[in-house]
Amino acid sequence: MGKHIISVDQFTRPDLEELFDAARSIRRRMRQHDRGLTEICAGFVMASLFFEASTRTDMSFQASMRRLGGDVISVSNGIQFSSMYKGENLADTVRAAGCYADVIVLRHPQVGSSYEAAYYLDKLNQRIRNRTVIISGGDGVGEHPTQALLDLFTIFDQKGTLDHLSITLVGDLLNGRTVHSLSKLIAYYTPRGVRLNFVAPDALRMPPAIVAMLRDLKITVTETDTLADVLGESDVLYWTRVQEERFTPEEYDTIKDRFILLPQTLAEAPKNMIVMHPLPRKHEMGTPEDHDLLDADPRAIYFEQMENGMFIRMALLAKVLRGAYV
Amino acid sequence: MGKHIISVDQFTRPDLEELFDAARSIRRRMRQHDRGLTEICAGFVMASLFFEASTRTDMSFQASMRRLGGDVISVSNGIQFSSMYKGENLADTVRAAGCYADVIVLRHPQVGSSYEAAYYLDKLNQRIRNRTVIISGGDGVGEHPTQALLDLFTIFDQKGTLDHLSITLVGDLLNGRTVHSLSKLIAYYTPRGVRLNFVAPDALRMPPAIVAMLRDLKITVTETDTLADVLGESDVLYWTRVQEERFTPEEYDTIKDRFILLPQTLAEAPKNMIVMHPLPRKHEMGTPEDHDLLDADPRAIYFEQMENGMFIRMALLAKVLRGAYV
Amino acid sequence: MGKHIISVDQFTRPDLEELFDAARSIRRRMRQHDRGLTEICAGFVMASLFFEASTRTDMSFQASMRRLGGDVISVSNGIQFSSMYKGENLADTVRAAGCYADVIVLRHPQVGSSYEAAYYLDKLNQRIRNRTVIISGGDGVGEHPTQALLDLFTIFDQKGTLDHLSITLVGDLLNGRTVHSLSKLIAYYTPRGVRLNFVAPDALRMPPAIVAMLRDLKITVTETDTLADVLGESDVLYWTRVQEERFTPEEYDTIKDRFILLPQTLAEAPKNMIVMHPLPRKHEMGTPEDHDLLDADPRAIYFEQMENGMFIRMALLAKVLRGAYV
Repeated sequence: MGKHIISVDQFTRPDLEELFDAARSIRRRMRQHDRGLTEICAGFVMASLFFEASTRTDMSFQASMRRLGGDVISVSNGIQFSSMYKGENLADTVRAAGCYADVIVLRHPQVGSSYEAAYYLDKLNQRIRNRTVIISGGDGVGEHPTQALLDLFTIFDQKGTLDHLSITLVGDLLNGRTVHSLSKLIAYYTPRGVRLNFVAPDALRMPPAIVAMLRDLKITVTETDTLADVLGESDVLYWTRVQEERFTPEEYDTIKDRFILLPQTLAEAPKNMIVMHPLPRKHEMGTPEDHDLLDADPRAIYFEQMENGMFIRMALLAKVLRGAYV
Repeated sequence: MGKHIISVDQFTRPDLEELFDAARSIRRRMRQHDRGLTEICAGFVMASLFFEASTRTDMSFQASMRRLGGDVISVSNGIQFSSMYKGENLADTVRAAGCYADVIVLRHPQVGSSYEAAYYLDKLNQRIRNRTVIISGGDGVGEHPTQALLDLFTIFDQKGTLDHLSITLVGDLLNGRTVHSLSKLIAYYTPRGVRLNFVAPDALRMPPAIVAMLRDLKITVTETDTLADVLGESDVLYWTRVQEERFTPEEYDTIKDRFILLPQTLAEAPKNMIVMHPLPRKHEMGTPEDHDLLDADPRAIYFEQMENGMFIRMALLAKVLRGAYV
Repeated sequence: MGKHIISVDQFTRPDLEELFDAARSIRRRMRQHDRGLTEICAGFVMASLFFEASTRTDMSFQASMRRLGGDVISVSNGIQFSSMYKGENLADTVRAAGCYADVIVLRHPQVGSSYEAAYYLDKLNQRIRNRTVIISGGDGVGEHPTQALLDLFTIFDQKGTLDHLSITLVGDLLNGRTVHSLSKLIAYYTPRGVRLNFVAPDALRMPPAIVAMLRDLKITVTETDTLADVLGESDVLYWTRVQEERFTPEEYDTIKDRFILLPQTLAEAPKNMIVMHPLPRKHEMGTPEDHDLLDADPRAIYFEQMENGMFIRMALLAKVLRGAYV
């Protein structure tokens, strides 16, 4: 309660277990149309400060707050179009929202912006005796903690455990905030016998510091540029985009086919593997026709994953505003 | 309940009677400040996805949901400004909203987009055991079912019946989605002795297929390019804009005066005729001074018509979310 | 109740005393988490029409309405980006919102727009038997009544009285809507022995008509271009920006240092003086490092001032919608 949510580094195994239990409980209560949920955050106000677009994060946070009975405010005409805002720094903007709201969801393109926002919010809270907290909705290529939490919850929820899973992450592992945070969070959960398979073009490999950290935490890490090396043993396939702009046309030609997930890819995958994706997706899952085929595969659980985002965010809002997960 | 609202073709006379009864009941209860209304959609969330601006449709749907006790989410900074959205297709965007909301109001410039959205939403619903429905807020030059419903309700409400009315539609009847849908809906209501008068420049006449369909359904149709031919017998005058851009300057000069509604036009109209307009209006009602004069005429009921949009939309939301109109 | 809030000229001393009592009561109840507050505007809808950005006014009105249990609607994609709106006049836009909402908060760049909006809203109300009211959120360089009200409340709240205070207003006093309205409101309160010190570059002095009006109302007015002349006796220092664009580079060079508030300025100010600013701030308080130093000074109460905006707006909404301040 009252703690800012800025980094996956804040979470230990007991925290995660408590959070996931709460998310499951909330999901069950929602499916039973339990009106008691709307008592949890009644009387609280969330400010939605999105300095860049992120439709899923934005809408799911709004829906989460509403479904808990809380209210949401945002800048009517879009914060990034505010001409008066040019020249105002984040510290002042966040403190304005902090005067009116109990929790701020901040999405900002600049790495570290969530920390800066939390710092100034704490100063404000001291001044005006508030307890406004910040939840990061992603800060540039830095962190996106709620995405990693919903990803891990989805794996846990689908597989019942993390122990002895072989989890394959594919795509741009160098710049991908999502895959960094998820890998760390898996390690913080301290599962037994987990294997992480990193499949990336050579130029876009997982940063060595993260690989070293994971190995220190007893995670078995395999690195390859060829999905076929690890597909057959994968319990989880987490797909992300390789952006064409990061390559010369010649380079891109040599790798592109290996980093597009197609229906035929799944034909060679284990029957009980799950396919995840943080969405939105573009060409990394082929054409719209390919999407339709992939979406029809029961292994493709990225819509369930997306929906889980709401349950996780509801659990987090309940925790930071009321001090209890449910 | 649980049915998408995409086309006026979905509505039969009993549906319309039930809807209009509900709209009247809701209006009465609102005027009595009946707090029970806010129980009807309590706990439900509406996602507002407007890919193009439509202030009236947008605000009235939001107000409708709120007045029924429901909540509304939308993309904080405007969906069409979302840079991440470039490249994402409608199917995925709608399914994202479908994960978080119980009903989606979709406004999109592309004809058929509501059908496509409903198709993918049904697929999602099967996967995640949701019942999210879509209500079209207009798809390009295609359909705008809630506008036609509020228009028909307004005629019914003002005149008490549709039987034996002479209803005159004026303006661009070739491209006008509003007049197409309203004409069809009048026919679907199967009134007795209705006469539809279509007043348009020759180049912008009502499509022959619609005229033929109306005549098949026993509606008497008159076509003319001169309002004076039918004004004297009109019970309803439904005015829409003729866009200057559809003509050469010379052509436009020859027709423009006949397609601007002025205070003196009403001087020659029946005393109990009503004047309708879907709004917004520009030059088709003359200058701001002309607006003031027209607005003061008791026959000008386009503000009542606009307000009726809220009562109709409240009735529809109650129906799709709760299975009953009230 | 039912009265538009458009100008500080509407407020007399008893009105202000009643409003400030209500704001204090609301603040106390909010700090006690009194859920009864959410009954006050339950069932009412506010439309937020911001034709230009004003993040603080916008967010604080939204939060105020929510915290009183009311709902808020706005144009999903931002009213100023609405292409359909081009060509529609304010009179029609306001009446659209008036059909759906009980109170409209209007921010518009054009002086007099709030009066125009109120005029057309009254016409609409007669037609459709509504009681929708307008509250101005600022109209260009005209008025911004709620800013003046929160400013005066803050002085009153910090000092306990207005009598015998020496209040120093600094910056662009010629074009500054905020300082005009606050000066008038101070006079309307009819305090005893108040001294207003106007510190401005010669080209940006307070308009003579306002100075004359204040002197007629028995306010002692001092005008100077040098803060040091009045700083030592000031109980309140109200700082605003001098825009560089209003000067030639040579002119600006000669005055700029005197119109930037720095930590060392406060070193020479009375210990119990309060520093106010309407925010946002840019260079008129130096660098971000200067901001941090100023913000840490207990005399800098502009965040309290900003928070007070919410309590004042809550009191006003309760009054116009329910007929009572609390």
